[in-house]
Amino acid sequence: MKRERIYLFDTTLRDGQQTPGIDFSLEDKIAIASMLDAFGMDYVEGGYPGANPTDTAFFAEKRTRQSAFVAFGMTKRAGVSVSNDPGLAALLQAAGDAVCFVAKSWDFHVRLALGCSNEENLESIRASVEAARAAGKEAMVDCEHFFDGYKANPAYALACARTAFEAGSRWVVLCDTNGGSQPDEVRRIVSEVIDAGIPGDRLGIHAHDDTGQAVANTLAAVEAGARQVQGTLNGIGERCGNANLVTLIPTLMLKPFYARRFETGISRQALQDITRLSHAFDELLNRAPDPQAPYVGASAFATKAGIHASAILKAPETYEHVPPEAVGNARRVMVSDQGGRSNFIAELRRRGIAVDKADPRLDTLIALVKEREAQGYAYEGADASFELLARRTLGRVPEFFKVDSFRCMVERRFDARGRLKTVSEAVVRVTIDGETRLSVAEGHGPVNALDIALRKDLGKYQEEIADLSLADYKVRILNGGTEAVTRVLIESQDSTGQRWWTVGVSDNIIDASFQALMDSIVFKLVRNREGAGLAAE
Amino acid sequence: MKRERIYLFDTTLRDGQQTPGIDFSLEDKIAIASMLDAFGMDYVEGGYPGANPTDTAFFAEKRTRQSAFVAFGMTKRAGVSVSNDPGLAALLQAAGDAVCFVAKSWDFHVRLALGCSNEENLESIRASVEAARAAGKEAMVDCEHFFDGYKANPAYALACARTAFEAGSRWVVLCDTNGGSQPDEVRRIVSEVIDAGIPGDRLGIHAHDDTGQAVANTLAAVEAGARQVQGTLNGIGERCGNANLVTLIPTLMLKPFYARRFETGISRQALQDITRLSHAFDELLNRAPDPQAPYVGASAFATKAGIHASAILKAPETYEHVPPEAVGNARRVMVSDQGGRSNFIAELRRRGIAVDKADPRLDTLIALVKEREAQGYAYEGADASFELLARRTLGRVPEFFKVDSFRCMVERRFDARGRLKTVSEAVVRVTIDGETRLSVAEGHGPVNALDIALRKDLGKYQEEIADLSLADYKVRILNGGTEAVTRVLIESQDSTGQRWWTVGVSDNIIDASFQALMDSIVFKLVRNREGAGLAAE
Repeated sequence: MKRERIYLFDTTLRDGQQTPGIDFSLEDKIAIASMLDAFGMDYVEGGYPGANPTDTAFFAEKRTRQSAFVAFGMTKRAGVSVSNDPGLAALLQAAGDAVCFVAKSWDFHVRLALGCSNEENLESIRASVEAARAAGKEAMVDCEHFFDGYKANPAYALACARTAFEAGSRWVVLCDTNGGSQPDEVRRIVSEVIDAGIPGDRLGIHAHDDTGQAVANTLAAVEAGARQVQGTLNGIGERCGNANLVTLIPTLMLKPFYARRFETGISRQALQDITRLSHAFDELLNRAPDPQAPYVGASAFATKAGIHASAILKAPETYEHVPPEAVGNARRVMVSDQGGRSNFIAELRRRGIAVDKADPRLDTLIALVKEREAQGYAYEGADASFELLARRTLGRVPEFFKVDSFRCMVERRFDARGRLKTVSEAVVRVTIDGETRLSVAEGHGPVNALDIALRKDLGKYQEEIADLSLADYKVRILNGGTEAVTRVLIESQDSTGQRWWTVGVSDNIIDASFQALMDSIVFKLVRNREGAGLAAE
Repeated sequence: MKRERIYLFDTTLRDGQQTPGIDFSLEDKIAIASMLDAFGMDYVEGGYPGANPTDTAFFAEKRTRQSAFVAFGMTKRAGVSVSNDPGLAALLQAAGDAVCFVAKSWDFHVRLALGCSNEENLESIRASVEAARAAGKEAMVDCEHFFDGYKANPAYALACARTAFEAGSRWVVLCDTNGGSQPDEVRRIVSEVIDAGIPGDRLGIHAHDDTGQAVANTLAAVEAGARQVQGTLNGIGERCGNANLVTLIPTLMLKPFYARRFETGISRQALQDITRLSHAFDELLNRAPDPQAPYVGASAFATKAGIHASAILKAPETYEHVPPEAVGNARRVMVSDQGGRSNFIAELRRRGIAVDKADPRLDTLIALVKEREAQGYAYEGADASFELLARRTLGRVPEFFKVDSFRCMVERRFDARGRLKTVSEAVVRVTIDGETRLSVAEGHGPVNALDIALRKDLGKYQEEIADLSLADYKVRILNGGTEAVTRVLIESQDSTGQRWWTVGVSDNIIDASFQALMDSIVFKLVRNREGAGLAAE
């Protein structure tokens, strides 16, 4: 049986931007578009050009290579012509392959929000779709409040959808804007829309999670015939969020119930990258990944030692609904982890560190990594700190210099002119080859002052680290209040363009930062000597 | 039409205990059982008496007043008689109204995990149910792996269910133990079980969230005829969690699709307590509530000022799938960068701040919010800082106290015994009613030290802020390296259970934290006086 194609439409950058607490910068948007594009989404909706400076700048050029790049905006205003609507003009001028128009399809909201007649709204839909097509764009229409509108006035909701379809909209997207519809209602209404003459392969579904069923509503629409699914990374979005593509994609691809009937544009190979994609996105949002997230959570394939654990070891596949490797995740049976050892060896080889399988120091390293990850270190995101730990455990790393002590001081007071002023100062005491050096620096805050003081005078190493600079600095509070454990991640770069991440963990943010700063400097010194036989013995 | 009764079975204390990272103490279990009982659950499953000391102690007495108190455990072992099975004896002797037996219903697992014959397993089910009834208990059976078992060998899975039913089990619970079943499969299989002779009002459903559809699977089973639903508070549970009762209960009670056909044991009055219940449970777990949780999340009825905001103010109910008050939550139209004048007025009114539309100070406030959001302040996530800014701009907020200066010091050095030690100390100079006070404190890091010093001696206000504590502390680096602009968000709470967020922004993390700490204290002092005519004039 030929499998039918499901098209994946990502709205992380548009509806995801409506998440309370999330505000993408232009750089964020560029980075996320590139992740989505590389992963293989069919459509990447980028935002609302003309509505705010960030989105307008984002649409100055096309930000995807493979994915269709989609601009979102309203249909033309009633009472003005297509050529006299500056909002529509901004949409059509934006770089991008497609335009997604949002159109009211609930007659109550046509009156309430647009203040125009039902007929004028249909005319706006028709004229907008035609204008987009005339401008050489693929056109699609989000029928806002479609399900609530359909329940209130099915004829008018259908008229909106049909107008979009007949004007040549590639997709007519049925939106459960308030998120309150139930899967059975979605299934019934999508079927009725298809029966009314709009083919399923022209219908999309846009669901929200207000009853915890965004994924189920999306799949119900697919079963009824819709062939485009809209969603976001990790289910971010307005209120309770949008349908989570990170959950939907593995379900469509791996669960036989769907996989035997449907296919997506994502390869099996790319699917193995979805755990990393999900975590990288959380990293960019500076939040901890949800350990209980379907498929990609750290606990998604974990079992606590309990009534199942011993049987799981006998036939793990009968306790897992899909193989964890298929989504780039791993089984965790919280007793001894048999698969760990070979993963470690592979990871070390990748870093040019040769180690024998029987080397007892390998067990020490595995135990150390587990212990430190339990404390809050995240080596997955700090490759340089992991490499240093491995080199220190499996071989040796010279003590290039020693920081005997440091002191950071932040003082806020009124200066001589009565202006409030905050001064940060750090003093570092370093010993190199038996010789002690004191450095002092002011900075923007205590961490910056410490960073400057630390790199101010490292004697014979000073020239080597002159091109080292810090590219990014991230802080995550791992639990509780101001006394909580803090994880600091620092990204460094040098003039060769190389970048590396280091990590520090402490209940003291300055201490955590110091650890990461130290690792950053030592890593560069080690790398410079790598050719000279410093690799683990 | 007479509505059918749905029975609510809470397994927070049993399957919820399988959540990685969650380990309830005896005191926790007592507190949670009491919350569930007071809320009105039909069944509270408490754990596994005999399996570990905590659960055994928990079952020393009955821990609920209204809810049936349920002990969980395995059916009797094959090859021993009921009277010779110590596990079964522990279950029957436990205080409690009911016993829930877990029984294998997938023949593959009968061999793999139990190592007995299919017939012996059926006999264990029959004998265990009869023994529980003879001991005066309500008996029920969790058919483990029922859906996977049914797909592999429907006759045997059915035989397990039928044996439990015929032996007098009040409930035969169909478990999707691996969490991989899809709603349509669940619906079909439950229907087939009913067709095979087990009435729906004797069937329960136990679903997991491995494809993000635990709620949808539960509702699919209810539609097919099952009348007991199992789940946990906030969806905790093994791997990706169990069906979330905090989502299911409002859906069953408020969505007409279900509410017209079904009723639960929860009153409309009690339902208004579900947001508080959900948050109190997170509090007990020492974790921040999920702002995007359906019904109860802080964002569940929030809208970012954007394309919808002005219409929402005209007819909010058409933008909300249920009224937020019905679940004890509240509407939030958030202030942000894009917010218009009417949003501001509505938001201020909601906070008890009356302001005239024509008041020129409103323009000052809007401009100020925009300017500060451009600097990095995020008022949509810091309601208390927003309220203070509004009150300061539109009226006045007394200067309760003044921080003349502060100093934070972090020192890392070797102590007298040669151990590396980091010490953080803060000194704060405060003036209250013309009198100056110096406070000094040590802490875990400079922010914690500053926090402690600041709240150590506020003179006549000290008693008022004694119950203020910090619940969460978040740091976001807005751009670049260690000299970057830092945004600090602090969540505070007091003994009334109220929570509020404040924000600070600076290129110095200590400064940013100081601003948020100050706002937190001042907000509490303002709130305490709100009744006393402090509202903006």
